[in-house]
Amino acid sequence: MNAAAGDRHALTQRAIESLGNRFGQRLSTGAAIREQHGRGEAFATGFPPDAVIWPENTGEVSEVLRTCHELRIPVIAYGAGTSLEGHVSAPNGGICLDMSRMNQVVEVHAEDADCVVQPGVTREALNSYLRDTGLFFPVDPGANATLGGMISTRASGTTTVRYGTIAHNVLALEVVLANGEVIRCGSRARKSSAGYDLVRLFTGAEGTLGIITEATLRLHGQPEAVGSGVCSFPQLRDAVETVIELIQSGAPLARIEFLDDVQVRACNAHSKLSLPEMPTLFIEFHGTQASVAEQFERAEEVARAHGATGLDWACDEARRAKLWRARHHAYFAALAMRPGCECVVADVCVPISGLAECVAATRADIDRASLIAPIVGHVGDGNFHVLFLLAPDDAAEHARMEKVYDSMIAHAHRVGGTCTGEHGIGLGKRDKLVAEFGEPVVALMRRLKEAWDPHDILNPGKVFRSS
Amino acid sequence: MNAAAGDRHALTQRAIESLGNRFGQRLSTGAAIREQHGRGEAFATGFPPDAVIWPENTGEVSEVLRTCHELRIPVIAYGAGTSLEGHVSAPNGGICLDMSRMNQVVEVHAEDADCVVQPGVTREALNSYLRDTGLFFPVDPGANATLGGMISTRASGTTTVRYGTIAHNVLALEVVLANGEVIRCGSRARKSSAGYDLVRLFTGAEGTLGIITEATLRLHGQPEAVGSGVCSFPQLRDAVETVIELIQSGAPLARIEFLDDVQVRACNAHSKLSLPEMPTLFIEFHGTQASVAEQFERAEEVARAHGATGLDWACDEARRAKLWRARHHAYFAALAMRPGCECVVADVCVPISGLAECVAATRADIDRASLIAPIVGHVGDGNFHVLFLLAPDDAAEHARMEKVYDSMIAHAHRVGGTCTGEHGIGLGKRDKLVAEFGEPVVALMRRLKEAWDPHDILNPGKVFRSS
Repeated sequence: MNAAAGDRHALTQRAIESLGNRFGQRLSTGAAIREQHGRGEAFATGFPPDAVIWPENTGEVSEVLRTCHELRIPVIAYGAGTSLEGHVSAPNGGICLDMSRMNQVVEVHAEDADCVVQPGVTREALNSYLRDTGLFFPVDPGANATLGGMISTRASGTTTVRYGTIAHNVLALEVVLANGEVIRCGSRARKSSAGYDLVRLFTGAEGTLGIITEATLRLHGQPEAVGSGVCSFPQLRDAVETVIELIQSGAPLARIEFLDDVQVRACNAHSKLSLPEMPTLFIEFHGTQASVAEQFERAEEVARAHGATGLDWACDEARRAKLWRARHHAYFAALAMRPGCECVVADVCVPISGLAECVAATRADIDRASLIAPIVGHVGDGNFHVLFLLAPDDAAEHARMEKVYDSMIAHAHRVGGTCTGEHGIGLGKRDKLVAEFGEPVVALMRRLKEAWDPHDILNPGKVFRSS
Repeated sequence: MNAAAGDRHALTQRAIESLGNRFGQRLSTGAAIREQHGRGEAFATGFPPDAVIWPENTGEVSEVLRTCHELRIPVIAYGAGTSLEGHVSAPNGGICLDMSRMNQVVEVHAEDADCVVQPGVTREALNSYLRDTGLFFPVDPGANATLGGMISTRASGTTTVRYGTIAHNVLALEVVLANGEVIRCGSRARKSSAGYDLVRLFTGAEGTLGIITEATLRLHGQPEAVGSGVCSFPQLRDAVETVIELIQSGAPLARIEFLDDVQVRACNAHSKLSLPEMPTLFIEFHGTQASVAEQFERAEEVARAHGATGLDWACDEARRAKLWRARHHAYFAALAMRPGCECVVADVCVPISGLAECVAATRADIDRASLIAPIVGHVGDGNFHVLFLLAPDDAAEHARMEKVYDSMIAHAHRVGGTCTGEHGIGLGKRDKLVAEFGEPVVALMRRLKEAWDPHDILNPGKVFRSS
């Protein structure tokens, strides 16, 4: 241990001692606890924090920040641990704030279709809570993430094509800044042009600018009618062209999900479906009975023109639930294809005109590299994922995966897309952020970070490397 | 002139000389030109810049910034001059960049429903350009503003209830920073979680963080069918409750505009309509023929339940155009009520549950203060405007107006709203920004500004006072 590391170690011990006196049993330095809090889902190598604290209110978060600010100790917020780019990992150690006890729905304003939640509320818990109000929170990244985590990674998912990403559905935030100061930004108004849009700035900042302690969210009316359907296509391109045409025609799609033949095979096995093992679209419309029926009629026309078969619209509720459960379990279905595997979930988002080519090129690259990797996508947004299933210790296979993933991102950039539609940068994509925008833009982000967190204690090293 | 002012004057002269050599006839120091560029619409007292330059490309904007950065001269971008809070005023002098020559639609990607424009393109020019593509740009603040200006003030307007504000419709930006550096942020992908959301940060920053030189905008399919209608209500509250119920029922409103009886009277006179002079809603749906008809049927039910009369749905194209022209000319109709008057256009946005009370209280305040002031509103967003018609030299009347406006904002804040839904802060609402968020939040904005523009040359004194 060199001198600087020794100093840091001593300061960390001081912080833990001081906070331990304050938080008692709600601070843990147990190895298993730390280990668990240092890794998200699907990111193999995590770095454990030095301690985990379970705060119960904003004041406690502020206290932790004040201590850590004074002693220059990193602080990392932890929601449900479902992030995919190493966001919760603690490469410089420090204190993990596990937000799971701040899990109250504080207010629901049914008349305004908004609610106020603590950051540890999960999206499923929120929707259970809302069940009888006629309202729901639509953003659905698949995993049962916490809302604090979803805001911090700018999450989206299957319903974004209709309801927007989480950035469209956050109205206001309470945030604890690096020095422990508590601020509120945004309002309950549906729109505002009052100064810099701090709400959107904290949204997707991955905990590097502040810790979210409360969020006001926009809700939506539960649709009167929901219609789901599924159809298969001879070629990937036919499915994607169907999507393009539907989007262009202004069809009010609520969800439109693509599964390639490999993913359909996985879902059939895992979720006991018997879909044709071909490129497949899951489609959903929300509206009135009449408008949903009208939309499916039009969608069928478009799909058939692109060679769709096995059309199964107007599913009943049970069938609908089964289909979407299968889609949500796509990740687990993929894992089951290769027992004991590790899974790297790749994420890019492209303009829809580049989608077919980008997916097809990626599929070809995967096959050429002899990898097992189903493809799924929120294709209405031009967003798709490759689920690379890897033998944990096969370095050569990992290297081949990296190469395919690099090509996929380079391709996305070539057609005007982004290296991440919804998973964020974290540790995993810092170089890709530079590739996407160039060093000057990342430098600009860093200047902002330095202005607000001069000691670099808020989730240091995420989004970009510390200077 | 004191020493500092003398220095500043000398530096400004140096900048003008140097830039004059470069820009020739495209730099003007003529009094009338400067005067015109120092005031927006409806903001009585403007401060002229020292010179106006008409750049023709990004490189030229960058050159101006480099010179002004070196010499510490303010730079203010000017679009169409339609802003309402003194955004283009130059209280510290400096260089005005008139962006009107950067007015090219650079690219249209019909397949992706996006386009790339220079900042001086107006929204009407863009929609003319797009006419044959089947696409349109929906954000409609009424005035024929430039897109650069609309982005910088986070504009919205009549269609926001359906298509979002401009913040929802900007995908990427090219921006020249204070030191002349040119950066690009965002992408053509529909969503991204790649680092801090700089696009949303520049949007609404009122030119204080950078000068926008290119924007990639999201477009929308021209709706197959557009249905407009109008109806009158006995009381303001009945109209607002109709709106609340329609919004809550998930009705896909494309526009829903409120005009109070005073505004209807003004519009009848100015636009040769014969609407009943009562609280009135203009409603529009976009969709298929069938869905529009279905929506109007439902809207009629709701409106009738709240006492609506004079229902006139299913207007033909000519009637529809006439109604919306009247709505867009509401400002001029109001001006015509009091020839020679000055108009202050007040702007607040509240949660819809607080809307009826806030509008009614404001109407009562106006009447008590013996002011002439029609009310209009984008009520689907909870956003409304008072058009205060004032005798230019009547200080007492101005003081009564200020008091009513203060109450209106205080009321908006009490119910969780914002002091500006769409007009921005500029010079006019800097104290209201502090009232809305508190000094620490404004200090946070200021720290960000200082980190990016250390010499405070970009539209200094707007949004918040210079430190």
